[in-house]
Amino acid sequence: MLVLNGKEVAKEVRSSLAPRVTRFMKEFGRAPHLAVVLVGDDGASHVYVKNKKIACESIGMSSTIHNMPTSTTQQELDDKIQELNQDPAVDGILVQFPLPKHLNSDEVLRQIAPGKDADSLTYESMGLFFAGRADVKPCTPEGVMTMLRHYGIAVEGKRAVVVGRSNIVGKPMAQLLTDANATVTVCHSRTKNLSEFTRQADLVVVAAGKARMLGKEDFKKDAIVIDVGIHRDGPGGKLCGDVRFEELTQWAQAATPVPGGVGPMTIATLLQNTCLLAEKRAGLR
Amino acid sequence: MLVLNGKEVAKEVRSSLAPRVTRFMKEFGRAPHLAVVLVGDDGASHVYVKNKKIACESIGMSSTIHNMPTSTTQQELDDKIQELNQDPAVDGILVQFPLPKHLNSDEVLRQIAPGKDADSLTYESMGLFFAGRADVKPCTPEGVMTMLRHYGIAVEGKRAVVVGRSNIVGKPMAQLLTDANATVTVCHSRTKNLSEFTRQADLVVVAAGKARMLGKEDFKKDAIVIDVGIHRDGPGGKLCGDVRFEELTQWAQAATPVPGGVGPMTIATLLQNTCLLAEKRAGLR
Repeated sequence: MLVLNGKEVAKEVRSSLAPRVTRFMKEFGRAPHLAVVLVGDDGASHVYVKNKKIACESIGMSSTIHNMPTSTTQQELDDKIQELNQDPAVDGILVQFPLPKHLNSDEVLRQIAPGKDADSLTYESMGLFFAGRADVKPCTPEGVMTMLRHYGIAVEGKRAVVVGRSNIVGKPMAQLLTDANATVTVCHSRTKNLSEFTRQADLVVVAAGKARMLGKEDFKKDAIVIDVGIHRDGPGGKLCGDVRFEELTQWAQAATPVPGGVGPMTIATLLQNTCLLAEKRAGLR
Repeated sequence: MLVLNGKEVAKEVRSSLAPRVTRFMKEFGRAPHLAVVLVGDDGASHVYVKNKKIACESIGMSSTIHNMPTSTTQQELDDKIQELNQDPAVDGILVQFPLPKHLNSDEVLRQIAPGKDADSLTYESMGLFFAGRADVKPCTPEGVMTMLRHYGIAVEGKRAVVVGRSNIVGKPMAQLLTDANATVTVCHSRTKNLSEFTRQADLVVVAAGKARMLGKEDFKKDAIVIDVGIHRDGPGGKLCGDVRFEELTQWAQAATPVPGGVGPMTIATLLQNTCLLAEKRAGLR
């Protein structure tokens, strides 16, 4: 089985971005800049945000983390977004989810200027995306497509199944695969006999959010399996995905490990999106 | 086989709208108003637009057709849309497609105020729709859902196949069926062995745009078949759909005829959307 090494591919994406960052710096005297807004003290979110900042800096991009307390009001958060929208030195804005419950994430998404929407989550970005007109695409699904291209895995004509129908992963993943001429079925928690669907598929993207939910018997021989899940197997336990990866080694044609599969691709795509937004705003594209 | 009578269901939708129109008139001294912009002299478009106007008037809504010559410039069309956006007496705006080739339909869609977007085609409307947050939904797919509900055909847990992936029908149809908890596969021109997919489905929506393309052998026994196609069978010939309807009578559980199936539902949903937009803008919802 081919192990789809997201760390490796993400490194390559970052390498390909570095000269673009250098060029941008030469022309504009500053690096493309990602602003990340982080509200509250969720431990996992702090780790994710820090990793994004490190990744930015590894290729010479700059990044600021805007830490706001859990007690932040909607108005304060909206004001912060408006400030970043208007700041000419900010190219991409990312609001780390989940937000504390008293804040309205819909309202936040409406505030981000579409030209700075690094995660393609505003309604205008989503509309452009589903209409097939977007430059910037949602990070995780686009990262998966980049990885498939890297390994020369053609999607056209394949039967694909996406397990999960979230706005951030499942729906846009299905759209990208359909745009690439796969025939795509979206399965979800209300699908009866899930494995009947997954077993027919040449390519399965699992974004179900359930630890170690699918294994060998759920896939056909020589399937390609992409695992978007990430879970900690008990307190202090190892990281694992939605798929029992170890069962696939003599079965699948290719699969992504967790960690080191889709995760690094998501961050690499975020950098790519920010770089693209910076170039577009500066008139380089 | 149950014939899904779109004419009948559309009449019922219109009847349910009539008291809302009356109430709106009483409160605001005018009827909900749909403005249709028609550029050029495409014969079929003129017929469609006229039918929409007649349907509006049949329930006391008002409608104006803004005829513009084929020579209309982009600027003139944009100005017209802006004028309608600002006109307080206009509740819904519909630009009849196709536009003459020198006009940019993307640009036009960006101009329509989302609060007046009766066909749910602007990028913001599409984004809201795909995020599951839209009040107003694309007319044809929403009309199909209304028809299924009318006949008590449950979608939840069913295997559905949508043939076609257009922005106006295929994609939003798949989304609505997924939202209703069906497991949906989107097939298209690059799908290999199409009938393998359609034959597994409990419910098939055909929006392929090819006259009489599918017949009995493409569906399983007791399938539900929805035909979105409309074609003229040769010059001066009869109207027909994408499905060979006559083959289904001893085979399907239910099917829509052409004409008299999905077509009337699309127009009824347009009225419903315009009414809803009027009520929302007036603060009734």
